Amino acid sequence: MRFTGLCAFPLTPLTPLTPLRPLTPLTPPLAAPSPASFAVDEGAYVGLVERLVDARVDSIGALGSTGNYAYLSRSERARIAELTVEAAGGVPVVVGVSALSTRDVLAHVADAQRAGASGVLLAPMSYQRLTQEEAFGLYETVAAELSVPLVVYDNPTTTGFTFTLELHGRIAELPGVTSIKIPPVPTSPDAARATLAHYREHVSNVVTLGVSGDGSAAAGLLSGCDAWYSVLAGVLPRECQALTLAARAGDSVTAHAISARFAPLWELFATHGSLRVVTAVAEVLGLIGSGSLPHPVRGLDAVGRRAVLRALEAAGVVEG
Amino acid sequence: MRFTGLCAFPLTPLTPLTPLRPLTPLTPPLAAPSPASFAVDEGAYVGLVERLVDARVDSIGALGSTGNYAYLSRSERARIAELTVEAAGGVPVVVGVSALSTRDVLAHVADAQRAGASGVLLAPMSYQRLTQEEAFGLYETVAAELSVPLVVYDNPTTTGFTFTLELHGRIAELPGVTSIKIPPVPTSPDAARATLAHYREHVSNVVTLGVSGDGSAAAGLLSGCDAWYSVLAGVLPRECQALTLAARAGDSVTAHAISARFAPLWELFATHGSLRVVTAVAEVLGLIGSGSLPHPVRGLDAVGRRAVLRALEAAGVVEG
Repeated sequence: MRFTGLCAFPLTPLTPLTPLRPLTPLTPPLAAPSPASFAVDEGAYVGLVERLVDARVDSIGALGSTGNYAYLSRSERARIAELTVEAAGGVPVVVGVSALSTRDVLAHVADAQRAGASGVLLAPMSYQRLTQEEAFGLYETVAAELSVPLVVYDNPTTTGFTFTLELHGRIAELPGVTSIKIPPVPTSPDAARATLAHYREHVSNVVTLGVSGDGSAAAGLLSGCDAWYSVLAGVLPRECQALTLAARAGDSVTAHAISARFAPLWELFATHGSLRVVTAVAEVLGLIGSGSLPHPVRGLDAVGRRAVLRALEAAGVVEG
Repeated sequence: MRFTGLCAFPLTPLTPLTPLRPLTPLTPPLAAPSPASFAVDEGAYVGLVERLVDARVDSIGALGSTGNYAYLSRSERARIAELTVEAAGGVPVVVGVSALSTRDVLAHVADAQRAGASGVLLAPMSYQRLTQEEAFGLYETVAAELSVPLVVYDNPTTTGFTFTLELHGRIAELPGVTSIKIPPVPTSPDAARATLAHYREHVSNVVTLGVSGDGSAAAGLLSGCDAWYSVLAGVLPRECQALTLAARAGDSVTAHAISARFAPLWELFATHGSLRVVTAVAEVLGLIGSGSLPHPVRGLDAVGRRAVLRALEAAGVVEG
């Protein structure tokens, strides 16, 4: 499996747990669950995945950062992997398997493979900051146990780990490594091409490079990225697929025009983090309920939500 | 419970799991565990705690960063909390309860309280970078459910979260908040006093301030810190208690002299992280076995281990 084109990352919407009612008026009330308790909203989740299938995305990324993987239990993650593969109807599914300990990563790998994932996505999550050699050891251990392709997930903001290009090159040689989800590239074409060329000095063409940071997707795809690992595509897959197809056909005018429609949204991503913004987008579109983020992470306040609504109006996604 | 004096954080030593033997020659071999599998070395752990009790530390910090809490399962953490309280023989135990989700933090709080902890230690661990308001919400939720005192754990290196002094002030007003484990202070006396004064503009004297960053302990205690939350004290409690008693008695010459003996070790902390260095110290002293860190984190290589041995010789802890 070679991951190219648009890989859309659905949110994993949560629903706050409300206190259980006592069975009869004589039963003592059960302990009220904490305000931090939640369950996965499986119905809303399947709806999000079906929307991606309808929009003909090239692959689906379950349990990415946007999919709240870091906050869910092993059984919740295994269930999401199963639900995604079922609802994907043959569209390849790559499942996030990252965890702080290699022991837990391998458990998530086993669950993802059992669920029928077409690949796994692995970031070097860290609590103690990892050395380059420790991160290599993680990928080496996991690659030795995998029977599906591996996508390397490079996200210094969430993991606190910075890959050197030399490390990317070493990991790319491991068996089964098929793609790297790279951080945002510069938006200027020359600088984006130079960034890609630096990767290619270390990483062979057998391994695809996929851009992340949705605001730099057009620049990334037009300057040689093979794929776009997209947060926004989790909620607006048609618009993102139109951008992807235009860019991969070399139509830079159309690709940049679609990206420019979402410029106010990219600014909100930078201010609030893409997860909080895309969650608000999904709420505005009626795809998920409120309170869907895992505490301590919280949704945008009223001011932020109004800014998201205005950004969607500016993009023509909702009527003003 | 007011945490003052020396709080020593023991390592949680792990032992790699070796493949299980089949029961009889006819039984098919069980699946070999991965090289990343481990169990807690409970015997070695209890030995470390007893060493702290013998050295008359003022409190014991179980499951701090040095205690590998971030890599352990809920049941392993609950068991460590129980073992610590049992072995502490009345010395107050503060138990680390941090986790990425508030839901998991509350589960660890319940386990720590059930085990008999005298307090809990809570850091704003983050995957999605938290806002100041989200971090406050975490402490607010936990404080509302606590029945033992809470120590705020400020460690930007591992958590990726930076507290403002305003946030420290707001959290310090929450019910049950008793102490703040602050990052290293400057080693120059004037700068250390200025740092402490800034905290005290926001945090009342009811809440103790404990220095971390062992190399700045003497400076911190001499300039007004009430406590030292110490990694090194987990393996060398007598030396650290001597430093603490001297500093709290105002004997800056003795305190600085003890700290200076360990200068080569503080340098190794900065290069390799205190966890890897203190683990090597514990191995050199024969307190734990090898391979005791949770993958992907690994122990020091041969060069690093030799440097640790030389630092211990320089400190007079082992013979050269």
